[in-house]
Amino acid sequence: MSVEPVLIVGSVAYDDLELPSGVFNNTVGGAATYSAIATSLLHPARVVGIVGEDFDVKTLDQLRARSIDIDGIERAKGKTFRWRGRYAADLNSRETLDTQLNVFAHFQPKILPNAQNPEFLLLGNIHPALQLHVLQQVKKPRFVAADTMNFWISGEPETLRKVLAQVDLLIVNDEEARELSGIFNLPKAARAIQKMGPARVIIKRGEFGALLFDEAGTFFVPAYPLEEVVDPTGAGDSFAGGLFAYLARTDQTSPQALRKALFFASAAGSFCVEGVGPSRLLSMTKDDFRKRLTSFMSLVDYGAQLDLP
Amino acid sequence: MSVEPVLIVGSVAYDDLELPSGVFNNTVGGAATYSAIATSLLHPARVVGIVGEDFDVKTLDQLRARSIDIDGIERAKGKTFRWRGRYAADLNSRETLDTQLNVFAHFQPKILPNAQNPEFLLLGNIHPALQLHVLQQVKKPRFVAADTMNFWISGEPETLRKVLAQVDLLIVNDEEARELSGIFNLPKAARAIQKMGPARVIIKRGEFGALLFDEAGTFFVPAYPLEEVVDPTGAGDSFAGGLFAYLARTDQTSPQALRKALFFASAAGSFCVEGVGPSRLLSMTKDDFRKRLTSFMSLVDYGAQLDLP
Repeated sequence: MSVEPVLIVGSVAYDDLELPSGVFNNTVGGAATYSAIATSLLHPARVVGIVGEDFDVKTLDQLRARSIDIDGIERAKGKTFRWRGRYAADLNSRETLDTQLNVFAHFQPKILPNAQNPEFLLLGNIHPALQLHVLQQVKKPRFVAADTMNFWISGEPETLRKVLAQVDLLIVNDEEARELSGIFNLPKAARAIQKMGPARVIIKRGEFGALLFDEAGTFFVPAYPLEEVVDPTGAGDSFAGGLFAYLARTDQTSPQALRKALFFASAAGSFCVEGVGPSRLLSMTKDDFRKRLTSFMSLVDYGAQLDLP
Repeated sequence: MSVEPVLIVGSVAYDDLELPSGVFNNTVGGAATYSAIATSLLHPARVVGIVGEDFDVKTLDQLRARSIDIDGIERAKGKTFRWRGRYAADLNSRETLDTQLNVFAHFQPKILPNAQNPEFLLLGNIHPALQLHVLQQVKKPRFVAADTMNFWISGEPETLRKVLAQVDLLIVNDEEARELSGIFNLPKAARAIQKMGPARVIIKRGEFGALLFDEAGTFFVPAYPLEEVVDPTGAGDSFAGGLFAYLARTDQTSPQALRKALFFASAAGSFCVEGVGPSRLLSMTKDDFRKRLTSFMSLVDYGAQLDLP
C-alpha cells in the first residue's frame, strides 16, 4: 500500500444551493473538496486549489483532520469561487443562477515539491491548459484521471486533446461523451474517446449509474436506489473520489480493481446526495459505508453462475 | 420442469412503424406476440388474443412452428388492431400517430378448457376488467404477472386494484409506478405498490435497465449497452417474455431465480430492439442468446467478494 496521498486538483468553493428542502447559502463546495472528502475515507488525499480571504479556516481544519493535506490550497486576495444554483423539485435538473469565479479566475495550480511525485492524480474539471500545467509539474504518475465539461469540449478542443493523450481514465457524463466524440451511441462514443488517449472511459449517468469501458470490456455500476435524495451537488466529484479511494488504498489499477472501485465510487456518490453539501459525506462512518456497500452489492448479485437452461 | 405452456394474454397487432431507419408498415406486433416469441426461446407459450380477417395466416404458422400454441387466438370479423407510431431520431421517445382498435375493441379473452390450469400466467396490458376475467377462468396459477399502463391507472383504478390483489408480480415502467403509487421516489413507490398486492414489483427504465423489489430486497439489471438500436417497439413485452421463459423453464419462482430471470428478460429485450418489429427475436439462435448472456453478465460481475479495505 502506497502512503503517497492521492493528488486532487480542482475547485474549492462556496455554493448557494436552492433546494426543494430549502435555501442553503455559503455551503462548502467545489469539485476538489468533494473528491478529497470521499477519497479520505480510505486513503490520504492532497488538494491543490485556491480560496479567497473569506474562506473559513475552520473548514480547512476539518479537512486536515481527515488526513487531507491542504498545503496546496492557496489563499489569495479576494473572494472564494461562488456558485449559486437552483434545483428542480425532482432534483433531476438544475439551473445556474450565478457564477462568481473570484480568485478562481486567476488559479494557477502550483504543485509543491513534496507533492510532485503522485501515484494517483485526479485532474478535476478546470481549464485543460491548467490540467496540462499540472501534468508538466509532476513526475509521470501511475494513474491519471481527468474530468471535463462541455464548456471546454467546445471551447478548448485542441488543448483538451493534449490532456486526453496523457490520461489513463476520462470521467464524463453522457452528454459530454456525446459532444466530445460527436457520436450519440454511448458504447461507440466511448470507443472513439479511447482512441483519443484514455484507455478507460467512465460515463456517468446520475441516478442511472455509470458505465466503464476499458480493455477488459464494458462494466456497469448502478446508482444506489435511495429513498431520500437531498442534494445532488458534488455527487460526481464524490464518485471520482470514491474511485480513487479504492484504487489508492489497494494499490491497484487492474480492470478487476477498477470494477470494484466503481462500487466505492457509486457508494460515495450515494452518501453525498443524502445531505446538503458534503454534510453526509462528512458525517458517515466507515461502518455506514460498509453497510451501504454490502446492500449495494446485493443489488447486482445474481448468485453463482447463470447457465442457459 | 413443467411442460405446461406459459399462458400469455394480450394484444396481437399490426404496427406501422416510422423509424429513423425508414417506414415499416404492416409489421407484426402486439404485446402478446412479442412476449410469446421471447418465451418460446426456452419454453412453450400459449397466446390468447384476437386478430382480424386480414391477419396473415403465415405469421400464425410461424408462431406455431416455435412451439407457441395459437389455438386461443380468435379470428374475428373485421380488421386486426393497428398502431402507427413515429420514433424520435434518438429512439428515446415516440409519438402515437394512430390507434385503430378494430377487432381488439371487442376482445373478450376466452381461455380454452385445456389452458385453464396454467402454472405461469402473464396478463398483458389490457383493460383490467379483462385481466380479471382471465383470472376468473383459470385455476389459481403458481405465478401471475401483470402489465398495465397510465390509461388504466387513471381510468380504472378500482378494477385495477382488484387485479393487483391477485398478482404475484407487477411489471411497469417508472412513470406508471409513480402514477399508480402517487410517489415520485421509486423505492418508496414500489413499497406502496407491494402493499396493493403484488409481492414483487419490477420497474422498467428502458435503456437504463430495470429494478426488482421483492421480499429479498432490491435488485437491478442493466439494459445491455448496444451499439445499434433499430426499433424499441415490443422491448418491454419481450422483457416480460424472457423473464417467464427462465422461470417456466427452470420451474422456479424464488428470489434468486427471479434475479437470474431478469438477465434473460433484459437479454430478450436487447435482441428485440436490434431489428424492426420482432424480426431479430425471430432470427436469433440459442447460441446468439448464450453469447449475449455471457457478455451481459460480465457487465455487472465485479468478481468474488468485495471487502472494505
